[in-house]
Amino acid sequence: MSKALPKRSENYSEWYNEIVKRADLAENSAVRGCMVIKPYGFAIWEKMQRALDDMFKATGHQNAYFPLFVPKSFLEKEEEHAEGFAKECAVVTHYRLKTNPDGPGLIVDPAAKLEEELIIRPTSEAIIWNAYRGWIQSWRDLPILVNQWANIVRWEMRTRIFLRTAEFLWQEGHTAHATKQEAIEETERMLGVYADFAENWIALPVIKGYKSPAERFAGAEETYCIEAMMQDGKALQSGTSHFLGQNFAKAFDVKFVNKENELEYAWATSWGVSTRLMGALIMAHSDDNGLVLPPKLAPIQVVIVPIYKTPEDLAAISAVIEPIEAGLKARGISVKYDDDDKQRSGWKFAEYELKGVPVRLALGKRDLEAGSIEVARRDTLTKETRPIEGIAEHVEGLLNEIQANIYAKALKFREEHTYKVDTWDEFVRQIEEGGFILAHWDGTAETEEKIKEETKATIRCIPLDAPTEEGACVYTGKPSSRRVVFARAY
Amino acid sequence: MSKALPKRSENYSEWYNEIVKRADLAENSAVRGCMVIKPYGFAIWEKMQRALDDMFKATGHQNAYFPLFVPKSFLEKEEEHAEGFAKECAVVTHYRLKTNPDGPGLIVDPAAKLEEELIIRPTSEAIIWNAYRGWIQSWRDLPILVNQWANIVRWEMRTRIFLRTAEFLWQEGHTAHATKQEAIEETERMLGVYADFAENWIALPVIKGYKSPAERFAGAEETYCIEAMMQDGKALQSGTSHFLGQNFAKAFDVKFVNKENELEYAWATSWGVSTRLMGALIMAHSDDNGLVLPPKLAPIQVVIVPIYKTPEDLAAISAVIEPIEAGLKARGISVKYDDDDKQRSGWKFAEYELKGVPVRLALGKRDLEAGSIEVARRDTLTKETRPIEGIAEHVEGLLNEIQANIYAKALKFREEHTYKVDTWDEFVRQIEEGGFILAHWDGTAETEEKIKEETKATIRCIPLDAPTEEGACVYTGKPSSRRVVFARAY
Repeated sequence: MSKALPKRSENYSEWYNEIVKRADLAENSAVRGCMVIKPYGFAIWEKMQRALDDMFKATGHQNAYFPLFVPKSFLEKEEEHAEGFAKECAVVTHYRLKTNPDGPGLIVDPAAKLEEELIIRPTSEAIIWNAYRGWIQSWRDLPILVNQWANIVRWEMRTRIFLRTAEFLWQEGHTAHATKQEAIEETERMLGVYADFAENWIALPVIKGYKSPAERFAGAEETYCIEAMMQDGKALQSGTSHFLGQNFAKAFDVKFVNKENELEYAWATSWGVSTRLMGALIMAHSDDNGLVLPPKLAPIQVVIVPIYKTPEDLAAISAVIEPIEAGLKARGISVKYDDDDKQRSGWKFAEYELKGVPVRLALGKRDLEAGSIEVARRDTLTKETRPIEGIAEHVEGLLNEIQANIYAKALKFREEHTYKVDTWDEFVRQIEEGGFILAHWDGTAETEEKIKEETKATIRCIPLDAPTEEGACVYTGKPSSRRVVFARAY
Repeated sequence: MSKALPKRSENYSEWYNEIVKRADLAENSAVRGCMVIKPYGFAIWEKMQRALDDMFKATGHQNAYFPLFVPKSFLEKEEEHAEGFAKECAVVTHYRLKTNPDGPGLIVDPAAKLEEELIIRPTSEAIIWNAYRGWIQSWRDLPILVNQWANIVRWEMRTRIFLRTAEFLWQEGHTAHATKQEAIEETERMLGVYADFAENWIALPVIKGYKSPAERFAGAEETYCIEAMMQDGKALQSGTSHFLGQNFAKAFDVKFVNKENELEYAWATSWGVSTRLMGALIMAHSDDNGLVLPPKLAPIQVVIVPIYKTPEDLAAISAVIEPIEAGLKARGISVKYDDDDKQRSGWKFAEYELKGVPVRLALGKRDLEAGSIEVARRDTLTKETRPIEGIAEHVEGLLNEIQANIYAKALKFREEHTYKVDTWDEFVRQIEEGGFILAHWDGTAETEEKIKEETKATIRCIPLDAPTEEGACVYTGKPSSRRVVFARAY
């Protein structure tokens, strides 16, 4: 067993990096800002993908695939969109290398310069809406409800594994509708899907809201988001759903004949979540012993460790474990029986704790005689001895309990770190301590910008369910009719 | 209904393009050589992915994800590999655009030039073996059995939708082993998985073999492949599995301490199949009426079409169809009940035929009275009237029969178009007519090249099960000990 993890309370950032590394989730690659997602990390991402994909399909969406490359002229077509993404994109300028005539190795072949540069997609509105022009002629062709799972490149200057990487994986839904109303409903429906996924799979409580104009997606008329709180009190935007109006239809000339036989531009939405959710998962639940995984996303939900000295003991233990393992699998639970004799059981305990396996069963010779088994929970780090009889059923219930408990814990943490603040002094003091601040804001971009400059806090969202409440802007004292969520954010 | 498809016998190439388009599988994008895979085409690809992924996991592999970018210096490290891929790659040279100071739009920011160019992965051996250096220290770390699903870019000059595109989707397995023997076994195991998938899912008979040295993957010591025959008698390489020896371990300095406590380079394999398989699927089975899908890969396995005039008729028919639909779904069969009243049933029949739906059920008022239903098979284009009673069970059996029949038909076609040829005159004549030629070859790259120049035929593979048979090279007359497969190929 290597040295202990850094503690959250001492160095949150280092604690996060070390968990990512030691739980074998991911690592930085040789390419600046790009990560390698290792098998254990990827197995969690696959579980996220599967659950989300099922939810998308249940809401009528189909998957498709569009090109990695966006011609520069396409990016230029929607002005705000271009401004938002041009400054951090990977640009392909050539299509061939050749042998270096002046030395070893390869050089870019100057004769193979592209007529028009290609941008690696920083998001796919432009390339997709260019295709939609050919797909949409009549209201009968609508709605188009398409999603794609893809890799994305944004040349971020400061990167952080999973949270902000130059290349990341995501899904992006791109829908086209015949009416504004229908597009807004779709935008809200997908926000609901994201919130449902965050809460019921990641066990992550989120606030549903919409962004201030300054924080909107480049090219959107309205950006909805889900915001979650990490254990250091910072916010993490965990998913966004955009109502794009007719902006992209206009930029790419996508018109259709409506039921009244008139030509009209189509209405658009786009929505996405990314491997950033891996960062949210890690930072929201894990502890100083390592990763804590919600059972629904754990690649291994139950690990069984035999405690033995002799091969005979192991054989006797294995004979008892076999039906337990089968019973768990029959309930759809993923189980690993770790009888590897190259490692001691103490090492295994620490390893599976580090990797966040929700339930550990351990069985030694004495248990065998007593007909009992040790059951350890990763979330509470508690252990109890249970009869072997009925253990599969017990574990099934326990996994559900752990899933619920992890959520409840995160919700309690968020509630305890959410503050109604009415004065600027209090705001400045509180923001240093972290957490979400519910405060009045006068609604201007100018105030928002000044608050950000002075405190590094941003408006995370204007909650959908914020009650109307007359008040005064915490910064300017101007009137405001409801509180918004301020926080420092990832 | 639009005009008929071109006939295979008249214009095979145009027939293929039209099926891809009219069955709504894919389309060319605005980016040269890059395709858009449309929802119906992507649904087939997803079924392929799911089946393959399950097979990879059943053979002990895990998924992971590695960066899209390969630094130029990495590509240079394995010499043959560099030569093989440098001539057709997309090169990222800059990481920012900026507003054009001399006019409208955006230009590449010359200040944002990368120190080292990045190549969009044409395959991932280089980036993955660079990562493996950190993963492999001891024989205990081996084997590493990793796969990734990813997009790939090879700047092909002549592209053809699904078959050869600048960007395509694939999976690439990359494994590391402690011994040569184990790596060779892995290479052969995965070839077996591919053959199994091709035959049992795509219903595509394949010849397992290895490539001549000239046709090997750049950097491989041995390339195994599966080769299939299309309906125009041309060959389509449908999957490859490479034994890479220690080439990449040496290029990226990946050494491990073996059981004898000595430092040794790791042994490698890589293997992949791509969206090219979509092309194989289409070209192997479809007919002049459109796509023919093997039931196991059909997004819709059964379509049910009501034949009615009045809403009352439809209601009566729907009431009978509901339990049929439920019965089919209970058997795990994907069903679409198309009661859309915007289209006539004749249009629907043609549409689902074009889209290759394996079984069509149709029910009219008269059927209702008779307690019967019309069952149409896409593969044979035959129809029969069956009692409604027991229809779900019948359809389940029928789907299996169709799957087997499609395979048998393709196998018969291949057998009828495979020829043992012993003279050069016959070779030249036969190659013009298409099909596989089994002929003796003297084993030299020189002869192989000359045959290619004179006839456009290449050695598709040296079949693994080719019997030893003394003979004379069909071109030079030099001695040969077994026949190899020659064909023109996609």
